[in-house]
Amino acid sequence: MESRNDCPENRERLLKDGFGYGDLRVLPAEKLDALAAEVRGLILDVVGENGGHLGSSLGAVELCIALLRKFDPLEDRIVFDVGHQSYPYKILTDRSSRFRTLRTLDGVCGFPRRAESPFDHFDTGHSSTSISAALGYAKARDLQAQSHHVVAVIGDASLINGLAFEALNHIRETKTRLIIVLNDNKHSISPRVGGFATMLARLSASTSYNRIKAAIKECCRVLPKGEALERSLEGIHDQIKALVKPNNVFDDMDINYWGPFDGHDIAGAEMIFELAKSYDRPVLLHFSTVKGKGLPEAERNPTKYHQMSSRAEREAPKARTWSDAASGVTEELALTDGRVVCLTAGMSTGVKLENFKSRFPDRFFDVGIAESHMLTLAAGMAAGGLRPWVFIYSTFLQRAMDQLTHDIALQNLPVVLMIDRAGLVGADGETHQGLLDVSWARAVPNLEIYAPADEVSLRRMMTHAAGRPGPTVIRYPRGPLPESLPESGRESLGCVKIREGEDWALIGHGVTVHLMLQARGRASALGLPAPAVLDLRRLKPLDTDAVDEVLENYSAVVVAEEDYLHGGAGELIAARLAEKNHTAVLRRLGVPDRFIRHATIDQQREFCGLTAEAVLKCGLECVKVRARTA
Amino acid sequence: MESRNDCPENRERLLKDGFGYGDLRVLPAEKLDALAAEVRGLILDVVGENGGHLGSSLGAVELCIALLRKFDPLEDRIVFDVGHQSYPYKILTDRSSRFRTLRTLDGVCGFPRRAESPFDHFDTGHSSTSISAALGYAKARDLQAQSHHVVAVIGDASLINGLAFEALNHIRETKTRLIIVLNDNKHSISPRVGGFATMLARLSASTSYNRIKAAIKECCRVLPKGEALERSLEGIHDQIKALVKPNNVFDDMDINYWGPFDGHDIAGAEMIFELAKSYDRPVLLHFSTVKGKGLPEAERNPTKYHQMSSRAEREAPKARTWSDAASGVTEELALTDGRVVCLTAGMSTGVKLENFKSRFPDRFFDVGIAESHMLTLAAGMAAGGLRPWVFIYSTFLQRAMDQLTHDIALQNLPVVLMIDRAGLVGADGETHQGLLDVSWARAVPNLEIYAPADEVSLRRMMTHAAGRPGPTVIRYPRGPLPESLPESGRESLGCVKIREGEDWALIGHGVTVHLMLQARGRASALGLPAPAVLDLRRLKPLDTDAVDEVLENYSAVVVAEEDYLHGGAGELIAARLAEKNHTAVLRRLGVPDRFIRHATIDQQREFCGLTAEAVLKCGLECVKVRARTA
Repeated sequence: MESRNDCPENRERLLKDGFGYGDLRVLPAEKLDALAAEVRGLILDVVGENGGHLGSSLGAVELCIALLRKFDPLEDRIVFDVGHQSYPYKILTDRSSRFRTLRTLDGVCGFPRRAESPFDHFDTGHSSTSISAALGYAKARDLQAQSHHVVAVIGDASLINGLAFEALNHIRETKTRLIIVLNDNKHSISPRVGGFATMLARLSASTSYNRIKAAIKECCRVLPKGEALERSLEGIHDQIKALVKPNNVFDDMDINYWGPFDGHDIAGAEMIFELAKSYDRPVLLHFSTVKGKGLPEAERNPTKYHQMSSRAEREAPKARTWSDAASGVTEELALTDGRVVCLTAGMSTGVKLENFKSRFPDRFFDVGIAESHMLTLAAGMAAGGLRPWVFIYSTFLQRAMDQLTHDIALQNLPVVLMIDRAGLVGADGETHQGLLDVSWARAVPNLEIYAPADEVSLRRMMTHAAGRPGPTVIRYPRGPLPESLPESGRESLGCVKIREGEDWALIGHGVTVHLMLQARGRASALGLPAPAVLDLRRLKPLDTDAVDEVLENYSAVVVAEEDYLHGGAGELIAARLAEKNHTAVLRRLGVPDRFIRHATIDQQREFCGLTAEAVLKCGLECVKVRARTA
Repeated sequence: MESRNDCPENRERLLKDGFGYGDLRVLPAEKLDALAAEVRGLILDVVGENGGHLGSSLGAVELCIALLRKFDPLEDRIVFDVGHQSYPYKILTDRSSRFRTLRTLDGVCGFPRRAESPFDHFDTGHSSTSISAALGYAKARDLQAQSHHVVAVIGDASLINGLAFEALNHIRETKTRLIIVLNDNKHSISPRVGGFATMLARLSASTSYNRIKAAIKECCRVLPKGEALERSLEGIHDQIKALVKPNNVFDDMDINYWGPFDGHDIAGAEMIFELAKSYDRPVLLHFSTVKGKGLPEAERNPTKYHQMSSRAEREAPKARTWSDAASGVTEELALTDGRVVCLTAGMSTGVKLENFKSRFPDRFFDVGIAESHMLTLAAGMAAGGLRPWVFIYSTFLQRAMDQLTHDIALQNLPVVLMIDRAGLVGADGETHQGLLDVSWARAVPNLEIYAPADEVSLRRMMTHAAGRPGPTVIRYPRGPLPESLPESGRESLGCVKIREGEDWALIGHGVTVHLMLQARGRASALGLPAPAVLDLRRLKPLDTDAVDEVLENYSAVVVAEEDYLHGGAGELIAARLAEKNHTAVLRRLGVPDRFIRHATIDQQREFCGLTAEAVLKCGLECVKVRARTA
């Protein structure tokens, strides 16, 4: 992908180093479209290099410009939903020079971050939080007798999530003023789904659109600025009311609905914002935008260009991923078992279910960004005799833990949870880490939890899950499949010793099994006694026989896991050690008790002390301690 | 409260022992109102004695009768939302004789349970799952080429939860038929809130009578014997206060909306159900009912009569509860700090915020059954400078764990989570146990987590939380405050030794501190060496100095907690034991890895081995083991 940031010599370059928010405010209106083009160019350049969320940001350039010119982004609270669309906002709020560090260690985060800039008012990453957060800001303003504006900027796909709906429903009760900017690009990560989307589409198709737009332009053209506008608002009240389409869901909930408007018309958007600022009631401004605007291939294929990998990832040889393997096995299972169905919450591309979808269209369900519904739907399907396979990122499962507990586990229903992106995820950073699933799922009764270290294990776990009468969780990481492990003990679903060793032992699960093998290699290379390596495989129920055997027969044991130490498998093994009065010296490695920022996965592992060197060091200390205490 | 189940000698008693579903089907229509009265009488009797959910069940008697007569409850799938309204259904599906065991050990559960009866099709307890589950059942039917009906029965308050909305939104995509019965009693547990409620009210007030006639005619056209039905409809149209309002949110989402109808008119409801059965598209049937119907005081005060305590609880001397104490301290804090606001999700009565609400109406927020929104709203408020106190039952926090993590903890915002009903809850049973909060919250960075053992500790923890710059979690149990603990060490928020002892030590947190004191008393009474007793108080971060001191200086240590052993504080202490190579023999008591059924709290504690005897036995075993191994 080549940059479109072509600035001929004879055209002034606007987005110079140091271009800041102040410059934007004073830029003459006629230069704004050129600025928008430069912002797009920069986004294309940087995302092409670093990877990131492309389509949404390209579609929101004009909206961001208009927002920043009509609101005071230090005083007013502009809350972006998810944050996929916040790159132009970041660029235009004094981060243009740093923007090339996007999603890299210590660089600009791919999502809004309060700690990063005073222009960012709420940290996001997961969908549909903006209206709730903005409502909180609005009430805080009211109770503290402040007067600034609060704006939630939300995409159409986020609007169908239950959280956004709960907030919309609550607005009426709060008796506050709030501006909701609906950036409707007609796409979720994948095409959006559901009746609500259909309703939005009907609103967008309304023929009154041009009439409304004309009316607003007419109103504003005759208005002087400032006080005159306010005075005249009374006069144009009827026209404002005319904008309100009667009987849509927003009106039904007493939220004034204006739109749809063209989200790529900066002057138009500025006018709408000016009017909305003078309005004393909650108002939803519906803007139609084009996802991927400005990049023809992205406009044609918005799903593909929703997110881009970094140049390095694109140029690396194509490797089969965990997601490929998981979906492949599911297809095989579906061929032999007509009860198998697959579910995803808007992530069919990410979890690689596109092929399943084409092969079994009736048995594939994309519910949109609605993780909670997805799990209870799966529970209903299982109660009705199907075998649902739910594909979900670890971080998004956080949205559906009650449904996993109360609807699936309580009834012991045969739902399989395929937890993708478990562990450290890299450049998406804090909000997208898959570090809580082990601690949280482990406490839920009736679940079996597995972490495969290679494709063969994954396949065996999936085959086992397919036949289980109860719920099964299988967690696997982002990225390419690792090399296959030695054959020994492969038949077992429990803890297996995959390398013999003396005196000390290393236990891993999932990716950390490979880490343990590396550490063992390092030890041998240094002429140290080689440790045994164990592949834990099943995190719940713990394979107590095998674990007891290790804790009994080795004097020093290290457990490493790519999830939080708090509540992780290491604690479970420590509890077993105590319970059985084993005398091994045990040390646990894992993710420390903090949110892990964006960087490469390797950098994050380094930060967490999940390296072969760290394992080796820890193991040798254990051995020393044991020698001292034994 | 006296039973209204008055059956004069000269009137036939219908609900005899052994009255079953078969009897209901053949009962002449003219006897149904009398049956409804008897069902109400039985509910009043049993709930008056055992406690339970009164108002919703009283309001749903006629709907349940009509459902059971028009659908086949063994073949068709009737899915109740929450289950508060399912008592009449239970009584009429072969459980009338057993109904007097409601909510008691081994008796009828207060919520639908598949394991209890083939008539119960989905386990519930938490709100708003019914549409998702029913949709799952419907797709399972379609894919297996079955033809039965699937019915979701949902209350108006449940409909405003995001989960229900996500399911409504998804219906259109699923291209299936599904009947949603909206039992609109205009009340949540407390009066319902929000714009969606307003919309329902507008629907109820609408009177486009001719539209329903047209709709019914349309349906009759596709029915066998349609004309005959249509003729009979003409005859009773006065009884059907029916209308279809165009352009409401359901129509917008391509769900056919019929209603509102009188939910206490059995014949009318039967007719509507018959029509809906013949309809080949998703349809929502809106019934207006009266919460508490048949009990004048409950009709007048539906919030008070939503749930009743058992006779024993009502007749016990009124004791101050944990909820009383928590809300009292919050009021004091609110007096001196204008930033303090309180939030609840429809539970203001349960968490005792009614007084706060009257004193600080502008600073009180009841969001309805919308826990996820509540936490993100609180995050927004905190980001805006307020100090939000969120009052939530432990079991319902399960619905908002991502919001706690992603919106509150990630930004380290000063929100206080007051987790009420933490631990075992008694008669509400499996779905309402507060057993996961420790394991789940403990894994989330930036949280401080406390468990007070008495009111003085609660107050100190709350005062500390009020001044913290980050998020704090305080968990406390259901029921009356315990006796105050000895004064020693009271100033600390960390682990404190409240009783000296020799050789062995008992660590508790919250309610189990008292359990440990009982065990100590039992030991002394038996002439055994008295153990030290420690009050852990802060579960995160662990008071490592104090815990190390105990693990170092006592040869045997027992930890007990009223939450799941998996991921509980005991594991944390075991991990510390391993990390520091302490040699104490450690045993953990807590809730085993299973769902804990309805019974009294004491019975549940007995089942979980959380008794003084069990602690004593465990402690003595530890001491023995230590003697053997040392």
